Amino acid sequence: MTDYRTLRVALLGAGAVGSQVADLLLRHGDELADRAGAKLELAGIAVRNLDAKREADLPRELFTTDAETLIVGSDIVIELMGGIEPARTQVLHAIASGADVVTANKALLATHGSEVFEAADQVGAEVYYEAAAAGAIPIIRPLRDSLAGDRVVRIMGIVNGTTNYILDRMDTEGADFADVLAQAQALGYAEADPTADVEGYDAAQKAAILASLAFHTTVPLDAVHREGITSVDAAMIESARHAGYVIKLLAVCERLAAEDGGTESISVRVYPALVDRAHPLASVHGANNAVFVQAEAAGDLMFYGAGAGGVQTASAVLGDVVSAARRHIAGGVGVGESTRANLPAVPIGRVITRYQITLEVDDRPGVLATVAGILSEGRVSIATVEQTVIEADENTQTGGSARLVIGTHKAREQDLSETVERLAASGVVERVVSVLRVEGN
Amino acid sequence: MTDYRTLRVALLGAGAVGSQVADLLLRHGDELADRAGAKLELAGIAVRNLDAKREADLPRELFTTDAETLIVGSDIVIELMGGIEPARTQVLHAIASGADVVTANKALLATHGSEVFEAADQVGAEVYYEAAAAGAIPIIRPLRDSLAGDRVVRIMGIVNGTTNYILDRMDTEGADFADVLAQAQALGYAEADPTADVEGYDAAQKAAILASLAFHTTVPLDAVHREGITSVDAAMIESARHAGYVIKLLAVCERLAAEDGGTESISVRVYPALVDRAHPLASVHGANNAVFVQAEAAGDLMFYGAGAGGVQTASAVLGDVVSAARRHIAGGVGVGESTRANLPAVPIGRVITRYQITLEVDDRPGVLATVAGILSEGRVSIATVEQTVIEADENTQTGGSARLVIGTHKAREQDLSETVERLAASGVVERVVSVLRVEGN
Repeated sequence: MTDYRTLRVALLGAGAVGSQVADLLLRHGDELADRAGAKLELAGIAVRNLDAKREADLPRELFTTDAETLIVGSDIVIELMGGIEPARTQVLHAIASGADVVTANKALLATHGSEVFEAADQVGAEVYYEAAAAGAIPIIRPLRDSLAGDRVVRIMGIVNGTTNYILDRMDTEGADFADVLAQAQALGYAEADPTADVEGYDAAQKAAILASLAFHTTVPLDAVHREGITSVDAAMIESARHAGYVIKLLAVCERLAAEDGGTESISVRVYPALVDRAHPLASVHGANNAVFVQAEAAGDLMFYGAGAGGVQTASAVLGDVVSAARRHIAGGVGVGESTRANLPAVPIGRVITRYQITLEVDDRPGVLATVAGILSEGRVSIATVEQTVIEADENTQTGGSARLVIGTHKAREQDLSETVERLAASGVVERVVSVLRVEGN
Repeated sequence: MTDYRTLRVALLGAGAVGSQVADLLLRHGDELADRAGAKLELAGIAVRNLDAKREADLPRELFTTDAETLIVGSDIVIELMGGIEPARTQVLHAIASGADVVTANKALLATHGSEVFEAADQVGAEVYYEAAAAGAIPIIRPLRDSLAGDRVVRIMGIVNGTTNYILDRMDTEGADFADVLAQAQALGYAEADPTADVEGYDAAQKAAILASLAFHTTVPLDAVHREGITSVDAAMIESARHAGYVIKLLAVCERLAAEDGGTESISVRVYPALVDRAHPLASVHGANNAVFVQAEAAGDLMFYGAGAGGVQTASAVLGDVVSAARRHIAGGVGVGESTRANLPAVPIGRVITRYQITLEVDDRPGVLATVAGILSEGRVSIATVEQTVIEADENTQTGGSARLVIGTHKAREQDLSETVERLAASGVVERVVSVLRVEGN
């Protein structure tokens, strides 16, 4: 075997991903050395609790609770603790100590990314984070490098496996949200506290990271519009199916052209949206993720794979470790991040997309004309209308209602929501059943 | 604007891709400078014929017929001439002159890749070729970098747009190969001489490049098994559909486990294969490409996008140009290629996959038993059988035939082909209608 230089690798965290990273580093050492051009020595694994149960069988002597000491003298520090603190402190400590950092910590990068990247720039260190945006799917290098000569126009990502699993089960089984969530929790696809996933927080963090990369700009987390999937019910799914759609939780990152001599801007948002069943994103099933990228020159691209999972995510982490090692061997000079502009993020109200509005209305002459009039006044143009009569209630003998499913042309979110309010107050609309955005065409 | 250092870029070739690269370099100069950290000055465009018609409106004074002189003093040379010579000579000249090279030339890399990469290694130059394997789809960096810490087990690629267009039209319209090919030629999706595409030569070159990267080994082009799609007819497509499959021209790159204390080996092959309609590759329509990658840790990944087209491919080329520029700015030290092992490539006969065999047999008792016996003797295990009676010919009153469609479990290609020969000679088989490999799961 070639006589390689040894690089010292410190691992922080031994959860689902961390224990797999340690296991692969130990088991595939020779092959990784060939890939990296350096022997990767796992110097230690910092954990909070030495006695916690691990998913892989790892040598006891590698474990320590003293991350601070472990970091000193390491060439590469892998941060897989998750959360903001103490991850942030340890990552900054690693950078200050002269190490390159590999992290899968989307929460940290989405909230303190600028601080971390600036600290790295000042000392010439690199921060690798392929695992932070879409698990095992290689999306960071394509956006940062392969598309660096192009202009990304739009990203639509299914970037949260738990919610895709839930929506997919609801779609295939006609089941209700609460039932599927309970199943997902039982199977380990969802956490006991599912808030981060089902309310879209996880997806929003990833959207911020993807948009930053795609548009070469800083995107603070609070610039990301976020809606979860807790309001999606079986009837909405069924209605979507009837219209040829499937409901997906999408992270949409969009570049908007300059208006009236201003600058370009971007929109970053996470919400459940209808996707045409013929669109490639519609066939992303189970807990899988996919990132659909539209670029000016390259056209449509899609990256598909496992969005989570310990060993899958470990693959992305180890790819970064090899990249960091190659950089060390090549002499410490790395590929810099491209210039970051500061494009403004627009609020959700300025987003332009298509919508599907489902209403229950009185079933009498003139109602459709009234509804159409309100839409027209609100600058919302109708693309399709489907009206069906709802059976009268046998007990109360009330009824005489109809269901209107209206597909709109592109409209501004602000106009749309004001129009829906006026519809609700119009006297002819009994109930606004749902308002969904239509993405992907 | 930031005061950037200027890098001199030479472009060789101004065909469909070259003219788009030149156009984008000129139009997006400022934005590319921000991405690259350097001003990219297009020093000149070497062409054979100064008066040829170009797809973009480019300044006349940039053109020259003297590639040799243009190359000298350039920091980055973009080779988009295609073909082996003079591309090979100019690329080696560029490397010797101290330039980094960006190329989309799959024929050159598949046949003289080792020579080119070794020449670059000797002087510390880099060769970038994102556009050579799957057009605009970023697949090189994911394989080389993102998956460097993983072990790629298998690649299945739809890497030729022309053949995918033809097969897709045959599938959706029930049309015949010759008719669709003629349409494709009329629409510009196929060349006047379609041999390179329809006989699988183009796909084989790309397969060699992908396998080299994925398995970190040298794969000579003559180690790639190659079959084209000229034998695919409407009846085969229809029969595939009936069984829930679609026919795709696949480039399959496979890592095979060591046997009996030997080393691991690989198999690289291009042929039309059945793909389950539920598989992600089945929904790759038109002239699009996709590369499906299975890795030990990462699991299943898919990369989808435009496989050809001038402006789409130009995106990949410019991404490489930006990477090369960043490397120049960072100080000339680059990310090295990982060690290349020399895994042996196995011949097609040792490939193990599933098959669908369609036979016309005598419709009399005992025939199925005979056929099953021959398969069993040949170590080919039957998974599914479907038998249908064929109407007797009204004129000749001959007939009494049946059609047998046999799906097999995994079998060795060698065993399978010998078994099919024995079936053909068995006396009960009137005709071997088709033998197709089933890929994907």
